Amino acid sequence: MPEFFPLGFKTTAVSAGIKKSGLDLGLIVSDRSATAAAVFTKNAFPAAPVLVSKSNLASSGHRLRAVLVNSGNANACNGEDGMNVAQKCVSTLAQQLGCSPSEIFVSSTGVIGRPLSAERICGSLPALIGGASNPEAFSQAIMTTDTFPKVASSEVDGVKVVGFAKGSGMIHPNMATMLSFIATDGRIDFPELDRALRYAVDRSFHSITVDGDTSTNDVVAVLANGASGISPAPQAFTAQLMNVCQQLAKSIARDGEGASKFVELIIEGAPSDDAAREIGRCVARSPLVKTAIYGSDPNWGRLVAAVGNSGVPLLSNQIEIYIDDVAMIHGDLAAAQQKMKAKEITIRIVLHSGTGRATVWTCDFTEGYIRINADYTT
Amino acid sequence: MPEFFPLGFKTTAVSAGIKKSGLDLGLIVSDRSATAAAVFTKNAFPAAPVLVSKSNLASSGHRLRAVLVNSGNANACNGEDGMNVAQKCVSTLAQQLGCSPSEIFVSSTGVIGRPLSAERICGSLPALIGGASNPEAFSQAIMTTDTFPKVASSEVDGVKVVGFAKGSGMIHPNMATMLSFIATDGRIDFPELDRALRYAVDRSFHSITVDGDTSTNDVVAVLANGASGISPAPQAFTAQLMNVCQQLAKSIARDGEGASKFVELIIEGAPSDDAAREIGRCVARSPLVKTAIYGSDPNWGRLVAAVGNSGVPLLSNQIEIYIDDVAMIHGDLAAAQQKMKAKEITIRIVLHSGTGRATVWTCDFTEGYIRINADYTT
Repeated sequence: MPEFFPLGFKTTAVSAGIKKSGLDLGLIVSDRSATAAAVFTKNAFPAAPVLVSKSNLASSGHRLRAVLVNSGNANACNGEDGMNVAQKCVSTLAQQLGCSPSEIFVSSTGVIGRPLSAERICGSLPALIGGASNPEAFSQAIMTTDTFPKVASSEVDGVKVVGFAKGSGMIHPNMATMLSFIATDGRIDFPELDRALRYAVDRSFHSITVDGDTSTNDVVAVLANGASGISPAPQAFTAQLMNVCQQLAKSIARDGEGASKFVELIIEGAPSDDAAREIGRCVARSPLVKTAIYGSDPNWGRLVAAVGNSGVPLLSNQIEIYIDDVAMIHGDLAAAQQKMKAKEITIRIVLHSGTGRATVWTCDFTEGYIRINADYTT
Repeated sequence: MPEFFPLGFKTTAVSAGIKKSGLDLGLIVSDRSATAAAVFTKNAFPAAPVLVSKSNLASSGHRLRAVLVNSGNANACNGEDGMNVAQKCVSTLAQQLGCSPSEIFVSSTGVIGRPLSAERICGSLPALIGGASNPEAFSQAIMTTDTFPKVASSEVDGVKVVGFAKGSGMIHPNMATMLSFIATDGRIDFPELDRALRYAVDRSFHSITVDGDTSTNDVVAVLANGASGISPAPQAFTAQLMNVCQQLAKSIARDGEGASKFVELIIEGAPSDDAAREIGRCVARSPLVKTAIYGSDPNWGRLVAAVGNSGVPLLSNQIEIYIDDVAMIHGDLAAAQQKMKAKEITIRIVLHSGTGRATVWTCDFTEGYIRINADYTT
């Protein structure tokens, strides 16, 4: 299904019986050792696979052969048993691939606090390893509450990148987690790959926000196996990676639980790009802003209050807010209201405190969100 | 209506025509100059009355004679005009009371970005000043989306305290703002009053959270006029003030927009009291936790994830969660679910990272909140 797929990679998926039905176990494998970088959740209670993968990356010198992902069970809050299960999966897969256990990255998403069966996963590894490459199946195997699979790809000057993500805008209850896995056949060393990933993640996955929660399992990982033989220019590769990450991140915001609208927030004139992003995130996660957008209410007072609530010190109290090209503050509210009725809206907030700039994506807040999250039964 | 009312104070209210109907202008006046302390919003776009009152308190050496409050219009985002209106009200009231303008505290709550009429307010001052004391009317005049007025009072060793508050749990759209005004006839100097207020506010108004938003107009002010002739012991007065503030803060959480349940969250074993409060606030504002409570879902994974999401570094990953006396983590979920069905629930989260402790109050998150905030039309 992706338009471009990097050389030397294979992605497969199977039903391992972790979910009640459907694909629930996926594998990305490279035919050679790949450079890898990852960004992990900052949650104080990281799940077992997060701890194991972080440690593996460090001991392999940021080299990976494979990423193994299951949905249906987060393997979080399972204590030592959870660690043992994650490690058992790692060592079994490493043995079957003939690589070092530290070259395996594991990831889980689903219910918190339920034991995960190492047997079901390990028993499915031969089928995963032997299967024909099927990116579409992989993209489905990592879904939980997602209503559609999320894949993006790109080719620039012979270097191909493919990315997969899961997450349905809000981090769902026991179905927590935003995951993304990206593979490229570019030849890139670790410091450059790591820098590019952090830059891209800040401007993509860290620039969507739906309810402000961070899960125990969130992770974004990228593998670069060099199979194309091409070493892309750092700037070009960073832009390519960011583009793929932004496509995936926007898909997540679009798939927000109960969402009826997709919102792009542009913040300009902030003290710095980071400050702009912080302000954007604060506005994007304000329930008052998100309900106003749902109600197509051009209530700019809520936007001003949310900007002011970000904690970012501003040099001026001047502020302008536009929806498309219509000024909202003391502006034509009837025209603004008309613009707010669209399914996709762009709000631009102009401050007078510098040249910092950021774009943030979110969705509106509807009764559907309450319903999905209140009716969920443990 | 309050059981106790401090000596030397009078509170009155009138309809000044700022709202479409009903009481909308209130006055608290002391028959002598009172020591005063206040805590103001940290929003980067403070409303004109916030700026004027802050400056007045500084130039009067923290002395006040009166507090003038209107509802129906926040006088926020009105630029220089807004400042002029606030200052005009201050100088007119000062003239009529025969005090310095810097001894007047003004406060507004209501729609953002609409001009406030100084004439309507100034024209109503004689009736306010001349009226008979009516605390009940005052408590109503400061309401916006509140469904009930909020008053609390206390007497300890001859010192009386009365407090008024408005706020309906969430900070409402154009009806923003949490306000509270407290009067006591205790004789207390500024440093002590300021210390007591900050301590009490941290453990009351700063310990309720509904949607995490802070408005342009939030303020808590206390006046101590010494009319009782009694100088209370600092610790006793702080406890008395905190008690009144907690009663008011809990009323605000109970009156949350669309709320169906009142929730007390107790955090124990945190690195410090401040850390415990920060964790409690993070849990209390998590939409996933709040929808789980609405749905009576004993979904402890959401609670763990919210604790871990607070940014507070913990020394241990051990965590216990109780609803009343029922353990939730790997516990009896049927019993926990039964407890969650109550209208008032207490959740206790025990960490193993120190002796820090805090209590935080909140309410659940229902379709009613979405409806109230989406249907509001500018």
